Amino acid sequence: MSLYEEIHEQPEILDEMYRANREKIPAMLQEIGPVKDVFIAARGTSDNAARYAKYVWGAFNRIPVTLATPSLFSLYKQPPDLKDKLVMGISQSGQSPDILAVVAEGKKQGCRTLAITNKVDSPLADVSDYVIDIHAGTEKAVAASKTYTAQLQTIAMLSAAWQNDQNRWNEIESLPAWSSKILANNSLMINAVPRYRYMDQCVVLGRGFNYATAYEWSLKLKELTYVMAEPYSSADFQHGPVAMVSAGFPVFAIAPQGAVYKDMFTLLAELKAEHEIDLFLISNKQEALDLANTPLPLPAGIPEWLTPIVGIQPAQLFCHQLAKEKGFDPDQPRGLTKVTHTT
Amino acid sequence: MSLYEEIHEQPEILDEMYRANREKIPAMLQEIGPVKDVFIAARGTSDNAARYAKYVWGAFNRIPVTLATPSLFSLYKQPPDLKDKLVMGISQSGQSPDILAVVAEGKKQGCRTLAITNKVDSPLADVSDYVIDIHAGTEKAVAASKTYTAQLQTIAMLSAAWQNDQNRWNEIESLPAWSSKILANNSLMINAVPRYRYMDQCVVLGRGFNYATAYEWSLKLKELTYVMAEPYSSADFQHGPVAMVSAGFPVFAIAPQGAVYKDMFTLLAELKAEHEIDLFLISNKQEALDLANTPLPLPAGIPEWLTPIVGIQPAQLFCHQLAKEKGFDPDQPRGLTKVTHTT
Repeated sequence: MSLYEEIHEQPEILDEMYRANREKIPAMLQEIGPVKDVFIAARGTSDNAARYAKYVWGAFNRIPVTLATPSLFSLYKQPPDLKDKLVMGISQSGQSPDILAVVAEGKKQGCRTLAITNKVDSPLADVSDYVIDIHAGTEKAVAASKTYTAQLQTIAMLSAAWQNDQNRWNEIESLPAWSSKILANNSLMINAVPRYRYMDQCVVLGRGFNYATAYEWSLKLKELTYVMAEPYSSADFQHGPVAMVSAGFPVFAIAPQGAVYKDMFTLLAELKAEHEIDLFLISNKQEALDLANTPLPLPAGIPEWLTPIVGIQPAQLFCHQLAKEKGFDPDQPRGLTKVTHTT
Repeated sequence: MSLYEEIHEQPEILDEMYRANREKIPAMLQEIGPVKDVFIAARGTSDNAARYAKYVWGAFNRIPVTLATPSLFSLYKQPPDLKDKLVMGISQSGQSPDILAVVAEGKKQGCRTLAITNKVDSPLADVSDYVIDIHAGTEKAVAASKTYTAQLQTIAMLSAAWQNDQNRWNEIESLPAWSSKILANNSLMINAVPRYRYMDQCVVLGRGFNYATAYEWSLKLKELTYVMAEPYSSADFQHGPVAMVSAGFPVFAIAPQGAVYKDMFTLLAELKAEHEIDLFLISNKQEALDLANTPLPLPAGIPEWLTPIVGIQPAQLFCHQLAKEKGFDPDQPRGLTKVTHTT
């Protein structure tokens, strides 16, 4: 199966994954018991999913999430004290030795451990007390797409289950429909791809829940199109990196209606006014889309916290199309293999 | 005072700061009592100092460090439960509203709060139970230099104090001498600056303690030379971004002797063999320096955990010189102001 097909499989995968885990996840959390702190080890795309967890579990479940520094476990062999934390590994393949080292240490210290993975027969699943199968089917493409959105949905479902909020479960249930809609309605964006043929660097901005989107979008740009794409929150961007912006500089951004919208809009409008940036924007606010050189509308009615799961899908497709436009094979990115073993 | 002068002030500042805080920090920690978890809010250069804290306090003090997501506090107004954590703000100016929001919420939740700042009469200091003055003197240059190394030294001193390890105090006391030495002995590097005149993008690699160095070095490159410089750990780099590397791609790296050396060296040697990367390397291992197109030797005898404080200084100087080479004014980076207010 090609990356193009895997991107388009997402509505179906999200639906199947929801059905497979709707009952299992609350039951598992019941067994796990109260969780005060979560400690996550992940790399690459899975690390971007962990970024989403930081915001969603923080905002809705009041759980502080710490991203692990795997080298403390694997190379320094001086791991921190994880007592009472839920130690989690997120990994498509469940194989990277440094991620395993963190979860194994958690177990050794007597913590509860949980794996979020696409491979329930992996070393990561073996070492974990609890395993959530993200049910994405075999992902053949080197660049992750459906496993990323399935990981995000897992994180969203854990949040709804911890809060026991039926309204949020209903919102998650609508993700396949929104996904189908956005993947079908993006001809404007597809037509704009040639415009980026010679782009060799850009920044990708997102904040709050969509901080993860900025990271994942920029990772896809790097993996597939070899464009030097750097992700920032609107706040971090202003603490230094904004100096890089000159006239016509390409800025990719996601700014849906919600708590961080005003902050994002203010920055983008300023960059537009002062530097005439070239803006590619995913949003459901007309005022923001009107600013953009390439506007990509999000379907109406998606709550902000779920926009990362919908918004990344046309962004993946854009990266795929741009790779082709640049003469690269999106199914064979140079220098990468599907499973990366780092220590 | 110019950036050039502030960079060269560092040996003196580190010495003064050490004397001013050598007794105060252990006394303060005595008052604070046992610390199981640290939660840090910071932006820009200070956030890179927080990255150093994650490794140093993890490795030597077994303390897990969580980097805050300020928007949960300032924009979403749905902060996580911080019970029992030491909540810390790191900020040169002590003024950014989003950093204040995190520390104020910590206080509201009854946590102990600590500010690491260069301005003891700032809003951040006002809202914090405990304040460490980094004693860097007025920093006039927009790009932080001496306040960064003074923040790192604060983090190092907190670690030595928590561990009550005289040997590590002695090592910290040698920082001014190592700093003077490296700032005096870099004519090779300075002569190499013109070679980078037309570089417009690069990556900066470092791992473990020097993950912070990769971030801070790349931030200086962006702020002063407007080069799109992206920081990675050697592990994260292999999970996708390595695809960007083509023949002759510029890689900046720091790889001192120590626990992560082998991992860094293996990656750099591979990138050299397979892609003929253009390598600028800070190290104290001859085998690694021999790989580099521009080698920058670290003085011998610096323990790995303190190399970030010494290694960043010639890197700052390199960025300063490259800015001038490119025709930019390192004392007036475009689009930046000394104090950045983000919400």
